Amino acid sequence: MLMNRRQLLYGMATAFAGPALARLGTGDEGPSGLRVNAARLERRLEDLSAYGRPASGTFADGVSRVAYSDADLAGRNYAMNAMRDAGLKPRIDPAGNIFGARAGMDPSLPRILFGSHIDSVPNGGNFDGDVGSMSAIELMQTLEERHVTTSHPLEMVIWSNEENLVGSPAAAGGLDQRVLDRVYNGIRMEDGLRKIGGDPTRVAEARIVPHSLCCYLELHIEQGGTLDKAKIPIGVVEGIVSIDEYEVEFHGFANHAGTTPMPERRNALLAAAKLIEAVQDVVTQAPGRQVGTVGQLEVFPNAHNVVPGLVKLSIELRDLSAEKIARLGDEIQQRAQEIARQTGTEVQIKKVDHDPPAMADPEIQAKIEQAAAGLGLKTMRLASGAGHDAQWMARLAPMGMIFIPSIGGISHSPKELTSWQDCANGANVLLATVLLLDGR
Amino acid sequence: MLMNRRQLLYGMATAFAGPALARLGTGDEGPSGLRVNAARLERRLEDLSAYGRPASGTFADGVSRVAYSDADLAGRNYAMNAMRDAGLKPRIDPAGNIFGARAGMDPSLPRILFGSHIDSVPNGGNFDGDVGSMSAIELMQTLEERHVTTSHPLEMVIWSNEENLVGSPAAAGGLDQRVLDRVYNGIRMEDGLRKIGGDPTRVAEARIVPHSLCCYLELHIEQGGTLDKAKIPIGVVEGIVSIDEYEVEFHGFANHAGTTPMPERRNALLAAAKLIEAVQDVVTQAPGRQVGTVGQLEVFPNAHNVVPGLVKLSIELRDLSAEKIARLGDEIQQRAQEIARQTGTEVQIKKVDHDPPAMADPEIQAKIEQAAAGLGLKTMRLASGAGHDAQWMARLAPMGMIFIPSIGGISHSPKELTSWQDCANGANVLLATVLLLDGR
Repeated sequence: MLMNRRQLLYGMATAFAGPALARLGTGDEGPSGLRVNAARLERRLEDLSAYGRPASGTFADGVSRVAYSDADLAGRNYAMNAMRDAGLKPRIDPAGNIFGARAGMDPSLPRILFGSHIDSVPNGGNFDGDVGSMSAIELMQTLEERHVTTSHPLEMVIWSNEENLVGSPAAAGGLDQRVLDRVYNGIRMEDGLRKIGGDPTRVAEARIVPHSLCCYLELHIEQGGTLDKAKIPIGVVEGIVSIDEYEVEFHGFANHAGTTPMPERRNALLAAAKLIEAVQDVVTQAPGRQVGTVGQLEVFPNAHNVVPGLVKLSIELRDLSAEKIARLGDEIQQRAQEIARQTGTEVQIKKVDHDPPAMADPEIQAKIEQAAAGLGLKTMRLASGAGHDAQWMARLAPMGMIFIPSIGGISHSPKELTSWQDCANGANVLLATVLLLDGR
Repeated sequence: MLMNRRQLLYGMATAFAGPALARLGTGDEGPSGLRVNAARLERRLEDLSAYGRPASGTFADGVSRVAYSDADLAGRNYAMNAMRDAGLKPRIDPAGNIFGARAGMDPSLPRILFGSHIDSVPNGGNFDGDVGSMSAIELMQTLEERHVTTSHPLEMVIWSNEENLVGSPAAAGGLDQRVLDRVYNGIRMEDGLRKIGGDPTRVAEARIVPHSLCCYLELHIEQGGTLDKAKIPIGVVEGIVSIDEYEVEFHGFANHAGTTPMPERRNALLAAAKLIEAVQDVVTQAPGRQVGTVGQLEVFPNAHNVVPGLVKLSIELRDLSAEKIARLGDEIQQRAQEIARQTGTEVQIKKVDHDPPAMADPEIQAKIEQAAAGLGLKTMRLASGAGHDAQWMARLAPMGMIFIPSIGGISHSPKELTSWQDCANGANVLLATVLLLDGR
């Protein structure tokens, strides 16, 4: 009964007083001093890493928990068992997303949703997605153990197939169902979705009703080196960048590398090389933090003794400002035309993809900063250069993301690494932010 | 008997008097006026083009008469039948080369050898190799029809598998027999050699005794655009270029294209782009006709959203002067080291191949010019940027090559084209040069 009273008090109190609640705490037991169990979080991250670990490898050898693989299925089962330990009843929606709800004091309030994903790229690391997912469970278990009930209903989620953006777009009503016809990692996505407990015929039902959500929070590793370099433990995400993707083809003329004099050549690879440098120049000469990448390039016929006749390449531009990358893209297109003229080649440039930016809610950013300050942790604001499930949730509700440092900025690699202390800090900031938001 | 007398007279006369022989000619019938049958040469080139022609294609669609293919076998049979029409008895040596000998007046003299090849690259043209091969047959048939016997024994050859340099290196004693273990166009070369009538266990016996050869001549299309551009019908080859081939690897660091700030990147493709431009600069800024090509390039992991971590590329340098390309290669290596420093990458450069130049014999060059002048054809001297069987024969005996124009400089392509008039001119210059050389 006391338990229930305290829960009630806490829930009501937070509903009115928010951070002032600190007074209600009894030392470490009280809500202001509420901390996750860092050792348990660490153990869960280590346990989870076993699913998809390379044969005879260790934690340091990373993970291949590719969506719909047996490792993904096993990892999801592990996560659902951990959720049960945390007092939750896991539910799989038709898009394969795993939800676990925890009732609040006021069922009429919209719920606070938080989570991440546990699928990985092939040869990925043990922190991307995993930290946010295991911390969400840890948050729930901490509240359970401390008998804390919030005002708002809470819900955690482990999104399915984040690396292909299937689960969260489905929840946001933005999934192009044709994606499910594609083969990914040797399995048709539709079949993969069935394998993990989803139902491709009912994916539309995965859509979350926007007004049912109070907000969405996600804790994630930065996947870049900004926090690590600045030695700042908590990043407050301002938004997820807009991405423009272009496909470029330079058409020259394939000819004999021995018999074609230099001035007669129409060398598609020379043109491509000049464009790669132009992309670098255009992107780095403008002020700001935008990035531009030529990541993919193919040469035809690609023989050491033939002047390249055709080169295909990709250009990707990212920034929080969609207008800025559109402008840089225009400049690059002009440079490409000049290069084509100089080299006697022809160029085709197509914009093949545009992701709008997903801005984080300013009030949530402030709450994350407040939560971190309460824990004595420094913060900095930064953009997320990588895409996240959070960008889809931003379509439904106010969104916030908490970043923790990636050592050396390495990600999507077995070398991906975040200290256990930073993982615990992130989980504690997530917990404190949820409590602050609950107290609005 | 008269026939024999004329042959004898001609043979003796050329042996002593050379070009002065013109006086012996009786109008078009006489040796100075000796001309090949241009219509028959054209017909044979058209007939030969049927073997390896794309289904329902025409002559203009080029040919895939890849060595050891059924088309190659059929083309070789066609050529051997044509040789029989020319009064020759074709002989296949253990390396698959087809020889046809014609006795001279003085069997103690070393023989004059001439020929080319009839195998093609996949999707090649109907002139590369074919013109020299059919012209060699035409030369023999013209002599046969005109009842002309030279002093020196004559021999024509159709080299096997020129595109992989198998037949002529074997004849020069320079074939690495391990090459025959390789699979080419779906067939182990050893088996391919057997298929065309060779004997891989006896390839060493294909070696030609050097002092048995007087000289080697080859008529070939230029495969470059120099003659066509200059509107000059006959090229006198000064030599076949030296080739240096390098393999380069730039090692950067593969990282997320969204989260890795521009200054933090170690972008292997940016480094490669700078090197491609450096190769162009170094090669074009030095005086001369040298060429340099980056023809092959591979990016790892080659994903649009990953900063390239590794790029492998080839560099090929060609010039008649081996010293010059060695010097340019050194300069390029220095530039590569500077680029690696600038881009935070590491570079490895290995010289993986060196072909020495094969110089044409100055006296033969002069005889080709004399022969062309006698036919009223302008000449220019030029280097062969492409490799040829002749480079192997240059190891055994004085070598000469006659080039005819490639329209637009196009080669190794169905669009490869040489006018019938230029083919006939080339065959006539070959014939006249043989007669001049016979008259030394």
